[in-house]
Amino acid sequence: MNKVTTEEIFAYHQGGKVGMACTKPLTSVRELCLAYTPGVAEAVKAIAANPAEVYRLTAKSRLVAVVSDGTAILGLGDLGAAASIPVMEGKAVLFKAFGDVDGWPVPLNHCRQGGADTGPTDPQRVIDAVLAIAPMYGGINLEDIAAPACFEIEDTLDAMLDIPVFHDDQWGTAVITLAGVKNYCQLCERDLGELRIVVNGAGAAGIRITEMLKAAGARHIVLCDSRGVISRSRAGLTGKKLEHAAETSAKTVGEAMRDAHVFVGVSAADCIKAEDVKGMASFPAVFAMSNPVPEIQPSVVAEVMGKAPYVMATGRSDFPNQINNVLGFPFLFRGALDCGARTINMAMKMAASEALAAVARLPVPPDVAAVYPDETLAFGREYIIPKPFDRRLFVAISSAVVEAAVATGVAAPGTDPIAIRKQLETRNLSR
Amino acid sequence: MNKVTTEEIFAYHQGGKVGMACTKPLTSVRELCLAYTPGVAEAVKAIAANPAEVYRLTAKSRLVAVVSDGTAILGLGDLGAAASIPVMEGKAVLFKAFGDVDGWPVPLNHCRQGGADTGPTDPQRVIDAVLAIAPMYGGINLEDIAAPACFEIEDTLDAMLDIPVFHDDQWGTAVITLAGVKNYCQLCERDLGELRIVVNGAGAAGIRITEMLKAAGARHIVLCDSRGVISRSRAGLTGKKLEHAAETSAKTVGEAMRDAHVFVGVSAADCIKAEDVKGMASFPAVFAMSNPVPEIQPSVVAEVMGKAPYVMATGRSDFPNQINNVLGFPFLFRGALDCGARTINMAMKMAASEALAAVARLPVPPDVAAVYPDETLAFGREYIIPKPFDRRLFVAISSAVVEAAVATGVAAPGTDPIAIRKQLETRNLSR
Repeated sequence: MNKVTTEEIFAYHQGGKVGMACTKPLTSVRELCLAYTPGVAEAVKAIAANPAEVYRLTAKSRLVAVVSDGTAILGLGDLGAAASIPVMEGKAVLFKAFGDVDGWPVPLNHCRQGGADTGPTDPQRVIDAVLAIAPMYGGINLEDIAAPACFEIEDTLDAMLDIPVFHDDQWGTAVITLAGVKNYCQLCERDLGELRIVVNGAGAAGIRITEMLKAAGARHIVLCDSRGVISRSRAGLTGKKLEHAAETSAKTVGEAMRDAHVFVGVSAADCIKAEDVKGMASFPAVFAMSNPVPEIQPSVVAEVMGKAPYVMATGRSDFPNQINNVLGFPFLFRGALDCGARTINMAMKMAASEALAAVARLPVPPDVAAVYPDETLAFGREYIIPKPFDRRLFVAISSAVVEAAVATGVAAPGTDPIAIRKQLETRNLSR
Repeated sequence: MNKVTTEEIFAYHQGGKVGMACTKPLTSVRELCLAYTPGVAEAVKAIAANPAEVYRLTAKSRLVAVVSDGTAILGLGDLGAAASIPVMEGKAVLFKAFGDVDGWPVPLNHCRQGGADTGPTDPQRVIDAVLAIAPMYGGINLEDIAAPACFEIEDTLDAMLDIPVFHDDQWGTAVITLAGVKNYCQLCERDLGELRIVVNGAGAAGIRITEMLKAAGARHIVLCDSRGVISRSRAGLTGKKLEHAAETSAKTVGEAMRDAHVFVGVSAADCIKAEDVKGMASFPAVFAMSNPVPEIQPSVVAEVMGKAPYVMATGRSDFPNQINNVLGFPFLFRGALDCGARTINMAMKMAASEALAAVARLPVPPDVAAVYPDETLAFGREYIIPKPFDRRLFVAISSAVVEAAVATGVAAPGTDPIAIRKQLETRNLSR
């Protein structure tokens, strides 16, 4: 595939990527009386009398807000709410195209300290804004909000609202990365608990990757930030960094990588050297997910490893093993909405990760292979993770999420996972 | 037409009336690279470098937020944000169906005093919430927000934001009512300046109707509220009521209506008696717009008037002369968006009103007549105002709004009203 050009990008973005769709006809006087006055008053009164009717008589159960204050847009940093719109629209489009979820972009101004549009985030203002808009949505997807504000915002909102609140930059990457690491374990025949793992980058993604790996059984993780290894001996640690500080004498990322099995980078371009990879254990895995330029180029790793076995994953679509969040969030929300879950808890995230990993181990059907004519899609070192256009994910992951929600008691009462799975299968044929 | 049934209403509302639409294709790896990473970063950087690019590279220029705190839902009162959703979705649908404007429902919780979801509105919280969500929208339509909070909210937001902020309950009814009164003047051959007008109801709509009538040349208006005539001698008047207090000895609405030419009701069901109408001047006009039950039934007025000439208008679709806001807001925003207006000023509202009145005086084309087989649509006492499904309004009103915006200097620099009118004509054929 040729690189997409700036002209092509601007043409694609002309007038935006999202619009409003009327889901009911409105061409007659009668339909006008149903859609608006006088008919609409009956729907209003029904919801006023029984708040649960909002899920039946409005679009709430189909809508997810994609919320950002623009403080951490992709890898570009803090460019503000308006500049974040193409990403939020893009995310909304991915929700629709992959999960049949109606995402809606909600870029937030006025949420920095003192109500400004620039400067450090005031978490309470983001919380207030999301509480304000919440009635219309069945879920809230937080996006591109810088750490540490994002932790407080997600935790507070998820506790206060009766709909799921999910920060994809934290959890999305973690869900997909864990699936990749699990499949790497299968290939190298090691147990997750015995892996020595280095996570470079202690922002939103790095912290949650660490937490999900630990929740899945990992026991030896060294977390690093821009100053090097976060070890117990380092002074001045607080919060999440203190919680995950490792018992190690290593000071630099390179030292930490010595004899490690897995490197996970959610940090910065080209910050890892060939020697660092050379020092890793046999059959290592390098997840270099900085975007658009990874922590180390796949070509450099290939040269270091020669004919020795290894796994290389990036965040880019033009290399094998892309760790792409679109493999997670559309289905996490699809499942959560379908079972009326009030949160997306760790069990649901773990279930999504396992379901995703399992699909990669299945033979790839011809319709999926046809979208990727230049690649050989068979479980192995260059295919540890499914492809975005794999239509099996819709049912496989969403229904795993529903089952986990029911099992952990956060689904709506009376949810029948088998019935929902059947609905998903039917829906998958027509979407 | 048979009355719509509750079953029919609930079936129509099942799953809501709005959804998100992807306006660009997303079926290939290439399109995925355009819609999201890596391509989307170019659009982000372009907006960060030049904020005006947000109008070209996002959906902002097509979207209008329909914002409510649920304090004054239709005539039903304060039922809260969730119960307001069917109305906000309905309004969004009307925006799309009539103005080809992508309306989006934004019901607001958490905006009552102390951040509660019930109780009196805290105007500052509504203002903060709208400032927060504004980046995504080309305009803000406030809806069903109770007076007096609605005045402060609209004024403050319109001054602070560089996009139009318009409270339809205030201005929408005023624009349409003025058009009706103007055409009544044509029929009864009186000048607007000589009319004696009684406006009953001093909420959002009543105040703005009074202001627009005055701006159009009316000089004799008596405004009334639930306590009767708002006269200069009444104690304790403040704000808008003080501003519009009349020099009169009348105490009750009935007394005020004695010898009046026009009664405008935006008040309560059945609050006007047959005798009140009997006491009006010859060839009177009764605009009884309380919904769903008017201030006085058309059948009662018909009995009072016998064979004498009069004009009767209501807010209902099942009587002639419906004063329906859908005749205004879709085109006010269509025009404002098309010329990049930073506000919808009085000149634009007046232009919309005049354009609407003018369409009623033209012969009705067959396609419009076909939608209303039970009515005779020819300018006269039973047809002083166009019908909602009259497709001529799209061009006629929107382009009048653009011309007024340019004339008053609130349109984007370089706006060409003639070119926009041509675009509207083309668009009207394909929408």
